Amino acid sequence: MPVELYRLSATDVIVRIRDGQLSMEDYVKSLLARIKERDPVVRGWAYINPDQVLLEARKLDQVPKENRGPLHGVAIAVKDVIYTKDMPTQFNSPIYQGDAPQVDAASIVVLRKAGALILGKTATTEFAATTRGPETTNPHDSSRTPGGSSSGSGAVVADFQAPISLGTQTGGSVIRPASFNGVYGFKPTWNSISREGQKVFSLILDTIGFYARNVPDLNLLADVFALEDDQPPDPDYAIQKGKFAICRTMVWQQAGPGLTKVMDKAVELLRSSGATVEEIEFPEHLQDLPEWHSIVFNSDGRTAFLPEYRFDKSQIADQLIGHVENHGKISRTTQLKAFDDIASARPVVDAMLSEYDAVLTPSVPDEAPEGIDSTGSAAFNKIWTVHHPCNTLRYG
Amino acid sequence: MPVELYRLSATDVIVRIRDGQLSMEDYVKSLLARIKERDPVVRGWAYINPDQVLLEARKLDQVPKENRGPLHGVAIAVKDVIYTKDMPTQFNSPIYQGDAPQVDAASIVVLRKAGALILGKTATTEFAATTRGPETTNPHDSSRTPGGSSSGSGAVVADFQAPISLGTQTGGSVIRPASFNGVYGFKPTWNSISREGQKVFSLILDTIGFYARNVPDLNLLADVFALEDDQPPDPDYAIQKGKFAICRTMVWQQAGPGLTKVMDKAVELLRSSGATVEEIEFPEHLQDLPEWHSIVFNSDGRTAFLPEYRFDKSQIADQLIGHVENHGKISRTTQLKAFDDIASARPVVDAMLSEYDAVLTPSVPDEAPEGIDSTGSAAFNKIWTVHHPCNTLRYG
Repeated sequence: MPVELYRLSATDVIVRIRDGQLSMEDYVKSLLARIKERDPVVRGWAYINPDQVLLEARKLDQVPKENRGPLHGVAIAVKDVIYTKDMPTQFNSPIYQGDAPQVDAASIVVLRKAGALILGKTATTEFAATTRGPETTNPHDSSRTPGGSSSGSGAVVADFQAPISLGTQTGGSVIRPASFNGVYGFKPTWNSISREGQKVFSLILDTIGFYARNVPDLNLLADVFALEDDQPPDPDYAIQKGKFAICRTMVWQQAGPGLTKVMDKAVELLRSSGATVEEIEFPEHLQDLPEWHSIVFNSDGRTAFLPEYRFDKSQIADQLIGHVENHGKISRTTQLKAFDDIASARPVVDAMLSEYDAVLTPSVPDEAPEGIDSTGSAAFNKIWTVHHPCNTLRYG
Repeated sequence: MPVELYRLSATDVIVRIRDGQLSMEDYVKSLLARIKERDPVVRGWAYINPDQVLLEARKLDQVPKENRGPLHGVAIAVKDVIYTKDMPTQFNSPIYQGDAPQVDAASIVVLRKAGALILGKTATTEFAATTRGPETTNPHDSSRTPGGSSSGSGAVVADFQAPISLGTQTGGSVIRPASFNGVYGFKPTWNSISREGQKVFSLILDTIGFYARNVPDLNLLADVFALEDDQPPDPDYAIQKGKFAICRTMVWQQAGPGLTKVMDKAVELLRSSGATVEEIEFPEHLQDLPEWHSIVFNSDGRTAFLPEYRFDKSQIADQLIGHVENHGKISRTTQLKAFDDIASARPVVDAMLSEYDAVLTPSVPDEAPEGIDSTGSAAFNKIWTVHHPCNTLRYG
């Protein structure tokens, strides 16, 4: 029996369309049917208009082959904190209900120009800034959270409603949902993709990331966004000769039994393949990194949510009111010190990590918690959100 | 003879309107007449619609007194890189000709809620990212540049076409025009005002700033944007007992005769009033600050202008193409090192400055240069743009 079209990877769809085996119209019809069937349970979409999607697909089918971009054939779900010219952007905020700025975010301009089809907008926590979940459920178990704040972007990819999606991370909002939903998540280095045209929470932390169900699909997006290191990857690289580190971090006491087991298993697998694995830890003077992150997070929220607070504070979450009113009584001196402390940690951590091919570190304390009210803990993510690329790999 | 209404400060207009001596309608009619008379020479506006301004003024006159905000009576000019819901935002870029996203930037939300009237959009260099001037002339001498990139915002305030305006700075784009136009400019600390809803050039450098013709008008905006230090200013402060520093900086060799004279005069005035003035200099290990700024500036431009480059590179400046194509061949390692070096400089410079009540440092190499093709040099600004508040005071 042939695989259902909606289950194909983006990379596979590109090839099939290029070879004339498939049209965008037929492909999105399959995705839309899947969405229609599954959305009542997963509730991952903040906005999707099937007629508009079909119209866009037909338009793309009309593009002459020589004018097609590298993402021709790719349908992308976009977190609803990123502006899209032809759809509302609502931030899961009553203030922005139905609001539809006529502008594309920088990331969307790049995606459209490359030939991608924007499927729709995915559910998020309020302004991607709280841990109170939207209505989205975990596609593997609807009694559990899909994580957040990129709740919908993680869930719809896991549920085969879209092959890839855009999310954003300020604390753990890309990596946590990737783990809870069992998909691949990639948070590139801060500011390597323009975050113009999306809600600001923290300028120094906010980062765009991707979700996909395999690595080649992540690479598609990385290439389109011109992400590149100074040195190209070694084509002869072999994991057998690899040198890896495992970093349980200063918040390891929050690890649950699922995490403990999977970390041990990962080390065992690497070692049994012949790779070297060393345990590393943050130096003593960086043990307060989680606290510094919180200070920056809260202080930046004070600036970021002033407009909505002034506009109508009765319509924003108490947590955001707390940022603006500075309930944590964080002084400007404390704020600047945390900012500078984080900055001074970056070269130290870079040097620590640079000795290894890759560093394994937890994405989440354990499997997705029961309930959808809370999107879970970002404890293991916050320490890495400050400018380090992160990648959640699927395991199992 | 009574002063013409358009010459009033924002603070004065607020009082007159509060006291019922003046209506917004009559006030903006005076501004519009001034603009009509002077715009053919100064050319500071990228967009202004007199009918729309009058309509807004009449609406504001209808607001019951008890519902009026702290900026009721204030008309503001806005640099055309900041989104305004009811006007185009065009970035002086042919790509965005006539483009009008239906969205207000964070700063505009705060201003409108406080009762301000958005007069129009002011001329800028392309994306506030080049030194090639728009058609704007210096109101004091139309053969000279008003500076940039906030060319129009500086010029229209100097020319009494608006009492205050918003600008932005990534290199020297607030402080330079303030100096060339002889008005007060204020660049607050980075990220103390949300820069959401405006073109991104460099996330770590871009900062919103203000122009006015006196300090109380700057204070109006500072208060509305909730800018505050940990300690309130000392009400008994006297300049006679003040301790000042003068920092000529590592680029002092670029100083022209006008700057040399005015710096000497400033020191003389302070000393003759009884204040202490000490010469300070950046430590040896920070002499490369201008170079680090350039590296960050160019590298961030590589990310920021990818969308426009992909969209249609024939419609963007060669300088921006150079950023995206990395003509400077700046490696990721070099980029991160400059970023970390700047970060490590911040606490050092903070400590150096904290011993003084204020530090005097040049805004520009000399008076505004002849011609409007180039907006002049940001050499004296770049070193301070990295997170330090700056203020250009009018002198003479």
